[in-house]
Amino acid sequence: MASKPSIPKGTRDFSPVEVSKRNYIIAIMRTHFENYGYQPIETPSFENSDTLMGKYGEEGDRLIFKILNNGDYLDKVSSEELQTINYKQLTSKISEKALRYDLTVPFARYVVQHQSEIEFPFKRYQIQPVWRADRPQKGRFREFYQCDADVVGSTSLWQEVELVQLYDAVFAELGLYGVTIKINNRKILSGIAEVIGASDKLIDFTVALDKLDKIGEDGVKKEMLEKGISEEALVKVQPLFNFTGTIQEKIEKLSVLLSSSEEGIKGVEELQFICDNVSKLGLQKATLDLDVTLARGLNYYTGAIFEVAAPEGVAMGSIGGGGRYDDLTGIFGLKNMSGVGISFGLDRIYLVLDELGLFPETVTTATKVMFLNFGETQSFEVMQTIQKLRVANIKTEMYPDAAKIDKQFKYAERRGIPFVVKEISNGLFTLKNIISGEQVQVDFSTLSKTLK
Amino acid sequence: MASKPSIPKGTRDFSPVEVSKRNYIIAIMRTHFENYGYQPIETPSFENSDTLMGKYGEEGDRLIFKILNNGDYLDKVSSEELQTINYKQLTSKISEKALRYDLTVPFARYVVQHQSEIEFPFKRYQIQPVWRADRPQKGRFREFYQCDADVVGSTSLWQEVELVQLYDAVFAELGLYGVTIKINNRKILSGIAEVIGASDKLIDFTVALDKLDKIGEDGVKKEMLEKGISEEALVKVQPLFNFTGTIQEKIEKLSVLLSSSEEGIKGVEELQFICDNVSKLGLQKATLDLDVTLARGLNYYTGAIFEVAAPEGVAMGSIGGGGRYDDLTGIFGLKNMSGVGISFGLDRIYLVLDELGLFPETVTTATKVMFLNFGETQSFEVMQTIQKLRVANIKTEMYPDAAKIDKQFKYAERRGIPFVVKEISNGLFTLKNIISGEQVQVDFSTLSKTLK
Repeated sequence: MASKPSIPKGTRDFSPVEVSKRNYIIAIMRTHFENYGYQPIETPSFENSDTLMGKYGEEGDRLIFKILNNGDYLDKVSSEELQTINYKQLTSKISEKALRYDLTVPFARYVVQHQSEIEFPFKRYQIQPVWRADRPQKGRFREFYQCDADVVGSTSLWQEVELVQLYDAVFAELGLYGVTIKINNRKILSGIAEVIGASDKLIDFTVALDKLDKIGEDGVKKEMLEKGISEEALVKVQPLFNFTGTIQEKIEKLSVLLSSSEEGIKGVEELQFICDNVSKLGLQKATLDLDVTLARGLNYYTGAIFEVAAPEGVAMGSIGGGGRYDDLTGIFGLKNMSGVGISFGLDRIYLVLDELGLFPETVTTATKVMFLNFGETQSFEVMQTIQKLRVANIKTEMYPDAAKIDKQFKYAERRGIPFVVKEISNGLFTLKNIISGEQVQVDFSTLSKTLK
Repeated sequence: MASKPSIPKGTRDFSPVEVSKRNYIIAIMRTHFENYGYQPIETPSFENSDTLMGKYGEEGDRLIFKILNNGDYLDKVSSEELQTINYKQLTSKISEKALRYDLTVPFARYVVQHQSEIEFPFKRYQIQPVWRADRPQKGRFREFYQCDADVVGSTSLWQEVELVQLYDAVFAELGLYGVTIKINNRKILSGIAEVIGASDKLIDFTVALDKLDKIGEDGVKKEMLEKGISEEALVKVQPLFNFTGTIQEKIEKLSVLLSSSEEGIKGVEELQFICDNVSKLGLQKATLDLDVTLARGLNYYTGAIFEVAAPEGVAMGSIGGGGRYDDLTGIFGLKNMSGVGISFGLDRIYLVLDELGLFPETVTTATKVMFLNFGETQSFEVMQTIQKLRVANIKTEMYPDAAKIDKQFKYAERRGIPFVVKEISNGLFTLKNIISGEQVQVDFSTLSKTLK
């Protein structure tokens, strides 16, 4: 292999600094997931194809990575068959497994498969990579992590309240102030479609409405008309195009608009409960806002819909989202299991923290101190000292070879190691601070304290 | 889908308890990897096929999971071609990516690809899953984690000394006392083959010798004879079949046996340096032993070879292994980069800790306290209290629905939640210890302290 090695497009190598930053975010998520009673599970990277296929629509099926059967996978395909077969037919004969596309379907499969071992309501979190054969572009990868918290088996709206608090807790600890947690409800959207006489066009209606901040009022109206929604209906939804005010004001407007829709009123009541309690309990750093245009995966959600926007001024799409789906596990044969959950977009959160300089410096400080290598005669004494420092959990290295001192110093600098021990003499250590240039001679106890 | 869902053979779901136990082991590894100056990297789950194929021998190629190209992968294969093609030829046309088989080859690829950004010597650790289409059996999976620490770009034998210490540090903190870290050296094996006149049969010789504890002295001799090693040679290696004594005694015996082999003597010197320094620095809980039959992936290693055996009495194969390879990155065009590394067998370590009851109880205690749900009127007060406990990092839940009290208690018991708050009245909390049955009425400050 003469050419420089590379990795598949849409995938990434993560350097030590990048892994450390990612792990910093993940550790904070974990802490709060667990404070809120969510427990970790993990599922296999690949599932049986029939677990995944048909769960994400036609587009999703296309984007799922399929794994070739091992051994002679053509064994059972006759050469006559091969002449006329198309690739989709062939796939089902030569591939039985596929890489997971998200964490929700595997979670539903897990719940059904392990239902007898699980205590419901089951609050689980899962932080694992997923794979999609999407066209790679800025911020979109073929391998990326999802960080999900879901609860299944409870219809209590306190779950929604807690999920808003959970978002707030994680972003507050990350130092990411000013995120907006947008909330809506599928029943509101259904109710609107109902009162404007477009129930049969619910999807078209909401897909168009969802584009309001991208294509503006006129664009949305044009699209709705094209989809066969009447001029009369558009007049009725006019209030939604300038839907401002406090949450309470918005809820009151919706009450009026939806007064004739049973489902719509149910949605208003749910929103009222969630927003009231979030408001009374208080958020640390985030703002909750009601956004009637929010639809996300509408076919999926049946109640609350969430989406998190980065602080104003940061050009980044949503950094999280979620919602309630009344029949999470039905696809695998377990009926009447309501689920509600949220997801954190690790990659985007990383980009936002990086852009705003919010990663603490300590995150990327790996090794704290490096001992110069003066050759074999002194190395043993160095190693004895290092051993003691490591017991005290101080990240310590000796430069492994007796290279030129200059080279050793440069190595420490480039690695970002803040301290170097230059000399050991009569039990005293000459410790140099690489950043300030300051140099002191100290005994072991002071050395250890300085580095702690 | 009517049938109960399942997962592909050789893969596993991990329950909350299992994930917690695995994360406990991984966290301890991470701490020590970093104390020793190793930095984390991560590489993509799949690599370009040409990065992996041909690196693990024919058997390895067969066990690599290949990923089907997306879209119409048959587009460029004519139907005439399909009639005569065999599956291996077809694979190269319809699959360009494959799941990684280990962490070493991706690491080598990473080093070469990022050589301009890396400061050498480069000490990296990597904890990620790998995939092999092996026949699943007890303790062998198709998806499993590898936990590797390697340093590349230094020939210093202090690295080997440190890797022995690193094994010891991790197993000591895991409470796994009495592991044996076995060490050997490829140069010793080459030297022996040389002095018995079987240099051309080095592989056959070491493969047979490696089986000593499985098939015994007679079995090994029989296999060696079958492979064409002479009776005379067998007489010369006789001392190896009862190779007992202290490390120092063994090294002295090897010095005599290998006196005529330059390579053999070099191996003896290396062993001497490593064992001497490990011994002088001292190990916490593990024992170092010289095992001349140890070969492992011989074609790979060029210097030290390591393997870790579980404590006596635990029936488990090796729980770790590694060694030095002088030309780690040569396969990707970067010459003269010596590497040495070790791997921890997460799954087996897990099984050993489980068998010996070494997981601390706290590892599996998720939620610390659950508040009973008495219906909407009291829920808000409960949620206010819970919010304060969570800020203090106490893992807290409210049972989400106003179910029967009995049901709520059973849920807490089954979940292993140790405390339940039964009642809130005038700012006092009735706290019940589920295990002891003890019940106290306390104010918030005492509640918080008790749960901390």
